Amino acid sequence: MVINVDVEFLARDAARAARRGDLVIVIDVLRCSSTIVTALANGAKAIIPVKTLKEARRERLNKPDYILAGERGGLKPRGFDLGNSPLEYTSERISGKVIVLTTTSGTRALIYSRGARWILVGSLLNAEAVARAAYSIARSEDIGVTIVQSGTNGRFSLEDFICAGAIVSKLPEGNIKLSDSAQASLLAFRYAKNNLRAILMESAHSRRLIDLGFSRDIEFSCQMDYFRVVPIYDGNVIVRGDFRAGLEGT
Amino acid sequence: MVINVDVEFLARDAARAARRGDLVIVIDVLRCSSTIVTALANGAKAIIPVKTLKEARRERLNKPDYILAGERGGLKPRGFDLGNSPLEYTSERISGKVIVLTTTSGTRALIYSRGARWILVGSLLNAEAVARAAYSIARSEDIGVTIVQSGTNGRFSLEDFICAGAIVSKLPEGNIKLSDSAQASLLAFRYAKNNLRAILMESAHSRRLIDLGFSRDIEFSCQMDYFRVVPIYDGNVIVRGDFRAGLEGT
Repeated sequence: MVINVDVEFLARDAARAARRGDLVIVIDVLRCSSTIVTALANGAKAIIPVKTLKEARRERLNKPDYILAGERGGLKPRGFDLGNSPLEYTSERISGKVIVLTTTSGTRALIYSRGARWILVGSLLNAEAVARAAYSIARSEDIGVTIVQSGTNGRFSLEDFICAGAIVSKLPEGNIKLSDSAQASLLAFRYAKNNLRAILMESAHSRRLIDLGFSRDIEFSCQMDYFRVVPIYDGNVIVRGDFRAGLEGT
Repeated sequence: MVINVDVEFLARDAARAARRGDLVIVIDVLRCSSTIVTALANGAKAIIPVKTLKEARRERLNKPDYILAGERGGLKPRGFDLGNSPLEYTSERISGKVIVLTTTSGTRALIYSRGARWILVGSLLNAEAVARAAYSIARSEDIGVTIVQSGTNGRFSLEDFICAGAIVSKLPEGNIKLSDSAQASLLAFRYAKNNLRAILMESAHSRRLIDLGFSRDIEFSCQMDYFRVVPIYDGNVIVRGDFRAGLEGT
């Protein structure tokens, strides 16, 4: 049995992956998926991704222990508790809380993925953990794996491509068949891996975030395999998946 | 003055590049653009790209010195003189001739590019020559450069991505700004460049061509900078551009 591994470049392509019946790994390195991984690693109970600011506010209504979080144009919307910087999601602030999250690209990719049987959230921070979890589910369910890059404003993003390659590089060898885009991401990751931070700092979205004062977020998000958390999304909420099998630890 | 350099992944994205006012470099390594470069290097007078077999036959009507060429499903259509293998385009067969060419992906990308002010044809065979010509035109006209991958059946193709990176790598340094996709292609090319043939043999389209018996076409098309020809398309015909300035030779 061979597992087909594909990479899609844009949030909206998640729908195609879902139609193929694939397990989907949604990535948005800067910064939505890095934030989700960090939030769950630091004890958040669940994350509810929503599309609009209005939906976010409605979701939180009369729920005092919910946290309103996200960004528009990279910045924390008015009246929100947290922005989209993983560094804000300390255990002091979010442990045991439910986070209602709305971002520009990552949230869209999650919502486009909704038809898929399995939706995991990947980032450089949990590349190996998510790769192993995806492989083990795909093998037992006999389905393919598609890594979906959220992109930036509907355009291809370098940091998500490198992250896709990082996840591909962590898949167990043998019995996997890489699509052309998966191979391409792996080649680029192999060239970039010893110089990740400097290369990712050159992406269009990084330059924008640096201008906005968020360069520490990029540095943080470049730390490969910093966490072993695998977020799993059931179409409503994202929680910490329990994929201890095959992982050295969580 | 900075030249923006972008890479688009699919034939249909050529239209977007044209709308931006960019110079477009169309690539379809396997095999349309490699064939066009080889045909002009071996003395073909001009190439007329057309979309359908019917148009191709109509174009050739009553023109005995026209050659009917192309492929469907990788194979020479019935009644055609030549297929889409660059190795068929020897000077004995095509010198001084006009070639009416219809292929599945490359021809589509050319036709989608029609609105652009400048359309060049690139391949690994002429990577440096086309990069230098594009740079020199873009600088003098103050426009951007977009490399358009034709793809395979509407999907991203590895060989075109590596070729895009090869062309980016040959642009003169300084005063260029690479988009995320251009940077990504460059990273992948840098990793692949010492092992081009083996890596390109792994693409989905290569595997298909190998099955059809065309592995020598892939080997031939991987020869970087084998020709110094720069094909230029005015929306009707493709001829050999005269870009001697800045090139060591032709």
